[in-house]
Amino acid sequence: MIDLMIPFTDNKSAPYYEQIYCFIKKEIQEGRIGAGEKLPSTRQLAEKLSVSRSTTQLAYDQLVAEGYLEARPCRGYYAAEVESLLSMPERGSEETELLLEASGEEREEGMLDFSPRGIDLGHFPFSVWRKLSRETLQEGNREFFASGLPRGEQKLRGAICDYLRASRGIHCRPEQIVVGAGSEYLLMLLWQITGKRRIAMEDPTYRQASRVLQSLGHDILPVAIDRSGMRADLLAQSGADMAYIMPSHQFPTGAVMSVSRRREILNWSVEVPGRYLIEDDYDSEFRYRGRPIPALCGSDYAGRVIYIGTFSKAVAPAIRVSYMVLPEELNRRYDEVCGFYASTVSRVDQEILARFLEEGYFERHLNRMRGIYRNKHDALLEALEPLRKDFRISGQMAGLQLLLESCRGEREETLIARAAQAGVRVYGLSAYFLKPAESHTVILGYANLEEEEICRGVQILQEAWSTKEMA
Amino acid sequence: MIDLMIPFTDNKSAPYYEQIYCFIKKEIQEGRIGAGEKLPSTRQLAEKLSVSRSTTQLAYDQLVAEGYLEARPCRGYYAAEVESLLSMPERGSEETELLLEASGEEREEGMLDFSPRGIDLGHFPFSVWRKLSRETLQEGNREFFASGLPRGEQKLRGAICDYLRASRGIHCRPEQIVVGAGSEYLLMLLWQITGKRRIAMEDPTYRQASRVLQSLGHDILPVAIDRSGMRADLLAQSGADMAYIMPSHQFPTGAVMSVSRRREILNWSVEVPGRYLIEDDYDSEFRYRGRPIPALCGSDYAGRVIYIGTFSKAVAPAIRVSYMVLPEELNRRYDEVCGFYASTVSRVDQEILARFLEEGYFERHLNRMRGIYRNKHDALLEALEPLRKDFRISGQMAGLQLLLESCRGEREETLIARAAQAGVRVYGLSAYFLKPAESHTVILGYANLEEEEICRGVQILQEAWSTKEMA
Repeated sequence: MIDLMIPFTDNKSAPYYEQIYCFIKKEIQEGRIGAGEKLPSTRQLAEKLSVSRSTTQLAYDQLVAEGYLEARPCRGYYAAEVESLLSMPERGSEETELLLEASGEEREEGMLDFSPRGIDLGHFPFSVWRKLSRETLQEGNREFFASGLPRGEQKLRGAICDYLRASRGIHCRPEQIVVGAGSEYLLMLLWQITGKRRIAMEDPTYRQASRVLQSLGHDILPVAIDRSGMRADLLAQSGADMAYIMPSHQFPTGAVMSVSRRREILNWSVEVPGRYLIEDDYDSEFRYRGRPIPALCGSDYAGRVIYIGTFSKAVAPAIRVSYMVLPEELNRRYDEVCGFYASTVSRVDQEILARFLEEGYFERHLNRMRGIYRNKHDALLEALEPLRKDFRISGQMAGLQLLLESCRGEREETLIARAAQAGVRVYGLSAYFLKPAESHTVILGYANLEEEEICRGVQILQEAWSTKEMA
Repeated sequence: MIDLMIPFTDNKSAPYYEQIYCFIKKEIQEGRIGAGEKLPSTRQLAEKLSVSRSTTQLAYDQLVAEGYLEARPCRGYYAAEVESLLSMPERGSEETELLLEASGEEREEGMLDFSPRGIDLGHFPFSVWRKLSRETLQEGNREFFASGLPRGEQKLRGAICDYLRASRGIHCRPEQIVVGAGSEYLLMLLWQITGKRRIAMEDPTYRQASRVLQSLGHDILPVAIDRSGMRADLLAQSGADMAYIMPSHQFPTGAVMSVSRRREILNWSVEVPGRYLIEDDYDSEFRYRGRPIPALCGSDYAGRVIYIGTFSKAVAPAIRVSYMVLPEELNRRYDEVCGFYASTVSRVDQEILARFLEEGYFERHLNRMRGIYRNKHDALLEALEPLRKDFRISGQMAGLQLLLESCRGEREETLIARAAQAGVRVYGLSAYFLKPAESHTVILGYANLEEEEICRGVQILQEAWSTKEMA
């Protein structure tokens, strides 16, 4: 076993768990810890470094989530195989401030029910939005009512660039960004650049995207996922020339694409000219444990990744502003083919959003919402504890929903019907399948419920799904 | 010659010129005045009815613009051939209040220079917009930040229906309307319903639309226009299965489609199943003389017209809200094929705009802008008077630009270059041609200039284009 002596720096620069994470990641990336080598247990490392065990656990969890470590049940943690090609970009401390929330102890207990598409609007920053809106709608600001730049205003694109660099590890220029009224609209523009394609999609996936892509005339090729994301071997066999993926937090499964899988997928994209990856980074803001997972786009040195982000989840669904970052080749083609399209977002809204980002309101709003969602998430996991003997829970690292898979082999229809009879609505995973298949998994979204409702909902589910009731 | 005895009703119900217009229109529609019959001169009729000559002139101008009368130079006015099939829908007095502005004397003198895409934002109703925005962004209005209805909110679609009925003679249900972030986006949705088509377009036309349609993969078939709009004989020969037309006010020529041409075009659309007409009614709000030209859609009893309207011209370009009215068959297909697309307009903006329409602000704004634009228009026409000996002026009934065609056969490049040398920018008509052709016509947009600038600009043009200078 490796002896890790981590040289903690001034502890104000970054929390211990993050220093441990960075140190081990670098050791693995640079080959000083080889693939397959066993690491000390979290307890051993905690004792050695004189930190709490939750600190080492948090670092390991993050390394596992990103694919640097493998957790083998009852055996411990082992270094995974990683190629240096895909070393994650270094990011500054702004990111730490902006996105790292789960610095304290881990809380993994709690539960609820309801729609996986819900959002908690109870904390929408009305007064700030109203203030920015009022200040924008001044007589002196007539220019906001004139036609704007086709790709979106410079100020907003600049603010998005800053955000992406600080929080998602993406280094891009405002000239690569296209702002649009929703991701669906951006997919329409993209279709005009790439033409009809054969697009591999994770199965299950975000069905709204598959519907849009299909409606645009693309062929959709379902590719199965495992714990590390879309299976690269199946992608290679699929005949696809494009892939639509959610590496940071797959919807609806919550799978995080591992580092080696990222490398494989990126390698696939460069094997044949003209292949592209669409990275849908729809909710990377809401991660409750450890460091945020960097965007795949930040590791894309070959210009194969089209990055799509949105403010619908992080601010509010009615804020119809999404954006895409185009790799250089497609960016040039955009100018040729779509350069004449006027922006679909009003300049007033662009100005309000740009100021919301630039003046730190977005950061504060995210921090607040992350706390609120984490509390709900934790309440849900805690309430679910008694169900663990019959259900496998997954997707709990991030996002706004969890998956419950019946270990007793009950079908989702049965689970949904039982829950509905008892007055609780849960959702079947099969609604997200591209290829119809039997499912034993239900989804519980919790964003739109209060903690008390979550707990009550789970108690009802426990009763409704008890062996006695199901028999 | 026909003896017209017009029974004026209570003169508060409608102005005299409108009663004259309605009477003669009905006489022609119902065959009591036959095609080719000569009408009294405006002077004769004015004397007989004891009204001013400008009143009879206004009524005749409107009847000519709508194709009920033909004005034969030096000979007088004759009834045109009209089939009762296409009788214009009756419209209430709201419309009169809302859109009829040019009730007083005619002013046809004036001139300026600049972009045909400009809009006067100096009179944007900031305080109203701010008030509506503030009232919408209240804590109690959380629902405006949740996801809305895919086609747009019921309230806005209802307000648009009311406006269309009162002002454009279109009777539709809110369920037929789709609200979207700009007409270009609506054309993208439309493409998904109709599939790839062979679309006839007026030549010259609004090039932004032709670019969008082309980019979507449609074939564009240019069809020449004459004074009455797109030539129906050439449309029939074109092989098109769809046509994109601007019957109320063709851009950029300003041609108004005559009643008989409307009938021909509508007949074309019903001859073969699956044919459709896209009616782009982009600026019907700004008409300075006579009654507004009714929308073709209001005469479409066969469900062949797709109507597209926008608030970009009438309110402000940055208000990214357009809408389309789908005939029943396409409307059903929309639900099947595009029903899942989320609205591209924020609910906050939809609420503000709906209230702007419902509470009468839009009407007041239009009346105000119509007055402002008419003053500019008149100033432009007046200043242009000395140029009439060398230029044919057209497109002056409505819209925000005029056309000047050189009678001396100078090419537009020469006119543009001369003007530019003297510090004035004018635009060539050829930029709007689908089929390249020689042009001797320049476009003068005046919306964005002050009256004083208009007069100064025309003086400079007169000097720059004088025979001495051009030689």
